Amino acid sequence: MYKLSDKFTSMKPSAVREILKVTSQPGMIAFAGGSPAVEAFPTEEVKALANEILSENPVSALVYGVSEGYDPLRKTVKEWLKERENVGTDDDSVIITAGGTQVMDIATRILADKGDTVICEEPSFIGSLNCFRSHGLKLAGVPIDSDGMNIKALERVIKENPNAKFIYTITNFQNPGGTTLSLEKRKAMYELAKANNLVILEDNPYGNLRVAGEEVPAIKSFDTEGIVVYAGTFSKILAPGIRVAYAVVPKAMAAAFTIGKQVSDVHTGVLNQMIVSRWFDEYDVNAHIEEIRKIYRRKLNLMCDCLDKYCPSIEYVRPEGGLFIWAKLPENVDMLDYVNRLIEKKVAVVPGTAFMMDDTAPCSYIRLNFSTPSDENIKEGVKIMGEVLNNY
Amino acid sequence: MYKLSDKFTSMKPSAVREILKVTSQPGMIAFAGGSPAVEAFPTEEVKALANEILSENPVSALVYGVSEGYDPLRKTVKEWLKERENVGTDDDSVIITAGGTQVMDIATRILADKGDTVICEEPSFIGSLNCFRSHGLKLAGVPIDSDGMNIKALERVIKENPNAKFIYTITNFQNPGGTTLSLEKRKAMYELAKANNLVILEDNPYGNLRVAGEEVPAIKSFDTEGIVVYAGTFSKILAPGIRVAYAVVPKAMAAAFTIGKQVSDVHTGVLNQMIVSRWFDEYDVNAHIEEIRKIYRRKLNLMCDCLDKYCPSIEYVRPEGGLFIWAKLPENVDMLDYVNRLIEKKVAVVPGTAFMMDDTAPCSYIRLNFSTPSDENIKEGVKIMGEVLNNY
Repeated sequence: MYKLSDKFTSMKPSAVREILKVTSQPGMIAFAGGSPAVEAFPTEEVKALANEILSENPVSALVYGVSEGYDPLRKTVKEWLKERENVGTDDDSVIITAGGTQVMDIATRILADKGDTVICEEPSFIGSLNCFRSHGLKLAGVPIDSDGMNIKALERVIKENPNAKFIYTITNFQNPGGTTLSLEKRKAMYELAKANNLVILEDNPYGNLRVAGEEVPAIKSFDTEGIVVYAGTFSKILAPGIRVAYAVVPKAMAAAFTIGKQVSDVHTGVLNQMIVSRWFDEYDVNAHIEEIRKIYRRKLNLMCDCLDKYCPSIEYVRPEGGLFIWAKLPENVDMLDYVNRLIEKKVAVVPGTAFMMDDTAPCSYIRLNFSTPSDENIKEGVKIMGEVLNNY
Repeated sequence: MYKLSDKFTSMKPSAVREILKVTSQPGMIAFAGGSPAVEAFPTEEVKALANEILSENPVSALVYGVSEGYDPLRKTVKEWLKERENVGTDDDSVIITAGGTQVMDIATRILADKGDTVICEEPSFIGSLNCFRSHGLKLAGVPIDSDGMNIKALERVIKENPNAKFIYTITNFQNPGGTTLSLEKRKAMYELAKANNLVILEDNPYGNLRVAGEEVPAIKSFDTEGIVVYAGTFSKILAPGIRVAYAVVPKAMAAAFTIGKQVSDVHTGVLNQMIVSRWFDEYDVNAHIEEIRKIYRRKLNLMCDCLDKYCPSIEYVRPEGGLFIWAKLPENVDMLDYVNRLIEKKVAVVPGTAFMMDDTAPCSYIRLNFSTPSDENIKEGVKIMGEVLNNY
């Protein structure tokens, strides 16, 4: 009989995955999701745009596209990023991908071989961690403080891992930590990467969902050496089901990145890209972002206020944006037991172990999402969380 | 400075790629493409379907989907394949992908590690070959006869490559060879795979574009052992820009395949999948296939008739379907020189070397596509091909 590849044989199904299956059952109060708020989707606009495109020029929306992406969208994204975030220069290439995860997947292919190491925040996004694992990479975790990756620990981890090829960081409202990497630390990380021949994979899916505090410049905005791959997405500001995201890639890597895209799925859906491109042409995207920030601000504050009221023994850093709250349970509570008791009460949260390099190590955190549930469910669910806590 | 991965460092830009760039210039008679005929796209239907979906239930078309694919589409494809091709049993899982290439990419990840070997027809589709190369696989080519892979040579290549993990075969109207693997050879290949612990990756993008001869049962239709991954696509019968394809995967591999999809791009665009799903619900897809076969039949026969008339010294096997003719130049003609002379006359064809395991070895073939050019351009282009041939 055939055997699966070594890379995939090592990806064993985890206890966490079993819990996640349960959490998507109907009737659950869903704090376990990671979807943006559906009431923020510009549904009428998407319908009008699709109709216009398929009326005016259906063939160009349905025929093969190029691997780098639909050219007008690439140009629009390039200008928009420059203006909004000072990201990207003429020495960079904007390449459109099918969602943000694909940026991580392609970057991993072109930057690392099986057995190499990627340095990540610990905790970090399970989807990216699994992507790295699926390429046979080793994960070296660096703990995070309230202002992002601990730089002293990063220095140590770099020294301990001469095989490391890149640093993966979610700079704004980290998933799941909720923390934002300070400007000082961004600069320190950049200097360390430069000195150690490492690429930085800067993942910024949530940056546009800032609801408090000041914008912090992207690492990519001071990338004079061409060592930062920057990933952004329309999943959070338009809608995730459309699967359109972008990478800003130093020109020296762009040819390899394009081949990586080509061998992955040839190109991103053309209709999908044209919808996003035309959305910029016909609507005020920046104004839309301001509008949806109101929704996220309300929901984030509601969940935090409920936590403060019903679960005073839970510790967390109030995030300045994003989708998640990273909540630390009191010492007398066994995290997995608590998660299971919540499931019995029809409240679904993600066990923090899901985001750890080693998901069998002890962990007292859970991740809470506030964008998916309704306001009513946020109140009700957090109240239940408090009641269950009081039983310990 | 950072270095690219070993896998990608070995993917050097080829002379072929430079020629392909030129062939897409405006004003070219395009025999170098690989796109289905745009006049066969059901554009009005797609527009109506998109509008219905985005009117009736926009949120479900825009929110995150599941990695395995949109459930109603998976069910529809399962039934349709069973009825039409006797492909798939309850021991298989239908998984939706973003185009056919993604099936090869995911199957490669889960079945092979860097340094392993994949056994391919030689020549074979450059997109798949590059996908295998990008994972660091070695390619072992098996020559093809007019009825597909030479089985004696396959036996030898299997013996010579104990590291081989799977056989990649395009069973119908092979790209670029145009040949169809006979039933006898399909059975022989299956027995060899079984005896040697190999998986078969059966790629069937063109099967629905048969314009002559009898259907040949898919290898997957007699896969009692669960060792065949079958790939099909809506790129040729609906439209390629929509990026919806499917894999029929033995259940024992399905969990790994789903993880492979998840770490690649999370899921295929939901609107895209809903359009295809609803296309089956509201239209007669089988009747549509019969209609578009008429277009392909006319164009295939037109190009073959023109070749017989203007280029009698070119040898080829008239394909029974698909998109391509694999044309052998007379011995006195240097293939790359001929291709360049054609470019000067504004006719673009693909040098046969593009499809070889070693694209620097001598090759006297070119690949011609008849689905993209207009009838007029087919006549004009093949006439020019003949004129240039006469100059040797």
